[in-house]
Amino acid sequence: MTNSATNLRLKLPMACIILEVIIIILFGILVQYDDETDAKLWHKEIANGSSNYDNDFYYRYPSFQDVHVMIFIGFGFLMTFLQRYGFSSVGFNFLIAAFALQWATLMQGFVHGMHGGKIHVGIESMINADFCTGSVLISFGAVLGKTSPVQLLVMSVIEVTLFAVNEFIVLSVLGAKDAGGSMTIHTFGAYFGLMVARVLYRPNLDKSKHKNCSVYHSDLFAMIGTIYLWMFWPSFNSAVTAHGDDQHRTAMNTYYSLAACTLATYGLSAVVAHDGKLDMVHIQNAALAGGVAVGTAGEMMLTPFGSMIVGFLAGTVSVLGFKFLSPILEEKLKIQDTCGVHNLHGMPGVLGAIVGAVTAALATKDVYGDGMADVFPDIHSGEVEASFQGVRQAISLAVTLGIALLGGLITGFILKLPIYGAPPDTICFEDGIYWELPGEEGSHEELTTVRTPDEAEKLNA
Amino acid sequence: MTNSATNLRLKLPMACIILEVIIIILFGILVQYDDETDAKLWHKEIANGSSNYDNDFYYRYPSFQDVHVMIFIGFGFLMTFLQRYGFSSVGFNFLIAAFALQWATLMQGFVHGMHGGKIHVGIESMINADFCTGSVLISFGAVLGKTSPVQLLVMSVIEVTLFAVNEFIVLSVLGAKDAGGSMTIHTFGAYFGLMVARVLYRPNLDKSKHKNCSVYHSDLFAMIGTIYLWMFWPSFNSAVTAHGDDQHRTAMNTYYSLAACTLATYGLSAVVAHDGKLDMVHIQNAALAGGVAVGTAGEMMLTPFGSMIVGFLAGTVSVLGFKFLSPILEEKLKIQDTCGVHNLHGMPGVLGAIVGAVTAALATKDVYGDGMADVFPDIHSGEVEASFQGVRQAISLAVTLGIALLGGLITGFILKLPIYGAPPDTICFEDGIYWELPGEEGSHEELTTVRTPDEAEKLNA
Amino acid sequence: MTNSATNLRLKLPMACIILEVIIIILFGILVQYDDETDAKLWHKEIANGSSNYDNDFYYRYPSFQDVHVMIFIGFGFLMTFLQRYGFSSVGFNFLIAAFALQWATLMQGFVHGMHGGKIHVGIESMINADFCTGSVLISFGAVLGKTSPVQLLVMSVIEVTLFAVNEFIVLSVLGAKDAGGSMTIHTFGAYFGLMVARVLYRPNLDKSKHKNCSVYHSDLFAMIGTIYLWMFWPSFNSAVTAHGDDQHRTAMNTYYSLAACTLATYGLSAVVAHDGKLDMVHIQNAALAGGVAVGTAGEMMLTPFGSMIVGFLAGTVSVLGFKFLSPILEEKLKIQDTCGVHNLHGMPGVLGAIVGAVTAALATKDVYGDGMADVFPDIHSGEVEASFQGVRQAISLAVTLGIALLGGLITGFILKLPIYGAPPDTICFEDGIYWELPGEEGSHEELTTVRTPDEAEKLNA
Repeated sequence: MTNSATNLRLKLPMACIILEVIIIILFGILVQYDDETDAKLWHKEIANGSSNYDNDFYYRYPSFQDVHVMIFIGFGFLMTFLQRYGFSSVGFNFLIAAFALQWATLMQGFVHGMHGGKIHVGIESMINADFCTGSVLISFGAVLGKTSPVQLLVMSVIEVTLFAVNEFIVLSVLGAKDAGGSMTIHTFGAYFGLMVARVLYRPNLDKSKHKNCSVYHSDLFAMIGTIYLWMFWPSFNSAVTAHGDDQHRTAMNTYYSLAACTLATYGLSAVVAHDGKLDMVHIQNAALAGGVAVGTAGEMMLTPFGSMIVGFLAGTVSVLGFKFLSPILEEKLKIQDTCGVHNLHGMPGVLGAIVGAVTAALATKDVYGDGMADVFPDIHSGEVEASFQGVRQAISLAVTLGIALLGGLITGFILKLPIYGAPPDTICFEDGIYWELPGEEGSHEELTTVRTPDEAEKLNA
Repeated sequence: MTNSATNLRLKLPMACIILEVIIIILFGILVQYDDETDAKLWHKEIANGSSNYDNDFYYRYPSFQDVHVMIFIGFGFLMTFLQRYGFSSVGFNFLIAAFALQWATLMQGFVHGMHGGKIHVGIESMINADFCTGSVLISFGAVLGKTSPVQLLVMSVIEVTLFAVNEFIVLSVLGAKDAGGSMTIHTFGAYFGLMVARVLYRPNLDKSKHKNCSVYHSDLFAMIGTIYLWMFWPSFNSAVTAHGDDQHRTAMNTYYSLAACTLATYGLSAVVAHDGKLDMVHIQNAALAGGVAVGTAGEMMLTPFGSMIVGFLAGTVSVLGFKFLSPILEEKLKIQDTCGVHNLHGMPGVLGAIVGAVTAALATKDVYGDGMADVFPDIHSGEVEASFQGVRQAISLAVTLGIALLGGLITGFILKLPIYGAPPDTICFEDGIYWELPGEEGSHEELTTVRTPDEAEKLNA
Repeated sequence: MTNSATNLRLKLPMACIILEVIIIILFGILVQYDDETDAKLWHKEIANGSSNYDNDFYYRYPSFQDVHVMIFIGFGFLMTFLQRYGFSSVGFNFLIAAFALQWATLMQGFVHGMHGGKIHVGIESMINADFCTGSVLISFGAVLGKTSPVQLLVMSVIEVTLFAVNEFIVLSVLGAKDAGGSMTIHTFGAYFGLMVARVLYRPNLDKSKHKNCSVYHSDLFAMIGTIYLWMFWPSFNSAVTAHGDDQHRTAMNTYYSLAACTLATYGLSAVVAHDGKLDMVHIQNAALAGGVAVGTAGEMMLTPFGSMIVGFLAGTVSVLGFKFLSPILEEKLKIQDTCGVHNLHGMPGVLGAIVGAVTAALATKDVYGDGMADVFPDIHSGEVEASFQGVRQAISLAVTLGIALLGGLITGFILKLPIYGAPPDTICFEDGIYWELPGEEGSHEELTTVRTPDEAEKLNA
């Protein structure tokens, strides 16, 4: 199963070590503690009357940890559904996330404004870096099983950079709101990844199709990922909103959207799946679409009622996408979307952007009161009308789609170079190509093989 | 394995979608953001001198997320111990929890008092809804493997409603304390579920008994559930107690109770299990009984010493229950309690109620100081004596048992109607009846089958 | 597989119940709520102007819960990599952790100062007890698969006691800083455990070597442990540092160290592993070394840059240790280190101690400002020079190594007594010796065996 083309003995170490050394040097030159993490600066604030309990650590760190779990456990295990790609799913997820969060700190720092030539880091930069990482992991889902870790690292370098640029345009130039990232994270990550998958189209992928499915326990591992994503999505959407009612409301809106989405998913899955049975693919993925779809509007006064409608729609769209759209994407558009990210992040992300635009356009002082200053500062200050804020949101969606598709296109061609040790069509979705697999002597005896009663008797005797 | 009776193509979608549409409509009519989640109202409080850091989000949300993990990961994976029912255990747990938390928000809102005709929602209502959901999931444990998801949804509709009524009587009418729900959650959920199981008694269930057991890896998945429940139980019991010493003390009492319970469980398991070996069923379940048993008294001045005694007793009772009582329940009382909820939630819940009554009756101003106002406001105000508070607690236990048993009885008969697609006796404890199982082409090759040395050699070559 | 020597029917219950009864009695005599958990005392503080929101519960409990997850899920599942030792890995981890945290509360309470003859407990004592427990679990890793639970309990009794003594000498007598425990937790636990393993050397262990390896799904279970340890290590290192910038900075330094360590681990693993493939052992373990290595210096002004360098070195050292040093330890020094704790905790712990000493020696008022009072109170007060603080740190490392090695030596000989039901050389790394394994009737049918297409067809029909 080994050949020199996919041997990573030189390629992966070079990629990892060169990238890490570059990062360390750039951190050495450019990165500083911010006011809340620096001993001297924070104690100046203490001297000016702040309390240690005011440190933002206490108001962001629990959210950060929930997001962190989503990135490393949630995304990582969600992708373990493949029968023989669990090591790579969790392991490459781990690798590219650990890389991307460092690279994102630099790229977001460059783009979002330096302080006297320095990038300031603290809990908010950590959350934002994890967010950017999430976008890369979404794209990873589209190309899962068909790429080498070196390709994934190269993809991360480019995608993180473009993510930071797009995020800057959307949030800072256009003045759109997108706290939970329906646009900047989900739409961006999904369409970027789908375009990469398109360029990397493998006409002979069916040679590996016997590996491109789950087994019983791999589906259970994947449910660990699903459930963690589902539970912590309220923390994800609220992690960087303004303190107070904003974080509280965002978390709650997301919670309701997800609950409604789950009912829709189960209902629809039984309708469309074979013989009235439930399909694990739908449950693992579509039940999460409700979190994606309130990523923009979650911080707004969407109401629990509105959140539930959005969640219900998102689940519906997502299940139908898996059933009817994915086959078309593959056959007609030649997009082999391993995890169905179009159904979980793509369409629900676009839905979320539209919901956000509409909700913004309907914002009134009567509903938001002084809270308008947190949610829509430009409407509050009178700089723009609510309707124009809606337009900004819509333009942001278009910009995001454009940058994602173009970026994915370019990245796809870069990844197509035959130098990264990509797997051949016959050995996709297979850990053995990049991992030493267990199975030396002694393991003839199958541990999960349940013994015959006689044997069991003897063992328990 | 399919027949029209258990085909859910119409039944499950109808149940999910009708219920969700009803919920959404009721939310649209009745539910409003509370003062801490509404932009306008919260900013009025800000204008009156509050700080965003005072928002209850920061003092409840971490507890909420721990409870959320217990509900979705803890309960869900605890039940995956069955060899072939993992999809249903996690999946139906997911479905009915997502439903129940929405329905609970409405029912608890109705019963506990509306505000100008509206139900106000925020982090406390979210925690309380999750608590109510926990009760339903306990009942699910009693009927695990023998019910269709439609039956489970119908059960949830009724159980949540009765839970809210009982909770109102216990906490508001009788003025009992039960922060961690020894009575309202565990005793209620267990006896409700046991009565449902009794009515749904299947005399021919032994036709499925070869499925009613674990395999090696299913037991490991179940340990994920156990450990998460164990770790986060301190958050569960303290999630809605008063702020300050109360939350702090409750979490700590629970922590000590669980630790002592674990030692008792291991000790007793080796005594009663076959040949001095440990039994996974005990470890997975009885080690948690300490959390149940301080659900009422945990917020009181039980002391770590008292908590440990309670935990030790709970573990002991629970292991002995699994060993000696469960077979009697099944043979004599015809209660087929799949997960042994009587041993984990039933008896320890009753024990917790009694401990709570005794601890309340012994409360003195000397021990509680001004903290009496938080724990026993009626004793503090002089409205009742401590001994009478103990009586209130005892009456609450009786009321809870009564409502649970009667409610379970009625619910059982409703669930017995042959319209919900329940599994036949021969195909219980089997995912295949409601789920598309993996196993199409390509999977002849068994992924967990460890290869022979030759094959492994070749693969790793 | 059973014989009277390893039958635990009397031994384990006696150990568990006697130990628990002793603990309960000592708690009854000695342990009291501290000011923040006692109803009366806390309300005195309220009466003096404190707010319930000032209770330390809100500033430590989320960190505690993350640490708790590391102890019970992290360590527990990390060790499930063995094909047939998952019940014991998670189960004995659970048992000895539940015991050790209680015993640690007493021992740390004795040593660190009683209050009027009483040990005061609250959230800080809970975290410290979990820390001490972590040390025991590290030692467990060295002897994994070769010890009975009774031996492990006896080891815990001694190790916890010595841990408390060493911690007292290092932190209180010598005045060293070690918030994340590079020395007191990791170095201590590793060398203690390695010495125990040395004394318990089994020359015929190769008779069990066919069990001393992983299978596909056991490696995936282990990754659950790895990822949780990795994600929550920032909480671990920052859990007991001073509030404010200290906690914030410590968490962030750890986050960067781990990220850099992960890249180094993947790079090095591909270099040294067979045929350019990645080795799960490295990923599961070495990627965590970055957390260990900033355990001492993490709270100092190490900078993200410095943290990354430390993490990078730690990952490198750890992978190389697995590849080149572990075989030497086993063959030449007769140390059979099942989990490779020398590579994950031993060397990175020593590295962390050295980094801490150097960073301390370089501390200047110019960099720390008034924050010096939190990090190095003795330097701030002028009692010592920074360089002398460095010396204190270095001496602390030496003391820790000495106590660990000597303590491990004595403990090893105590554990060698043939009274604890230790497994014979032929049945190490095997759950069946202490656990009832699933596998009675009905389980002939293998659940993970993917069916043939025909069967699957029939089942899904």
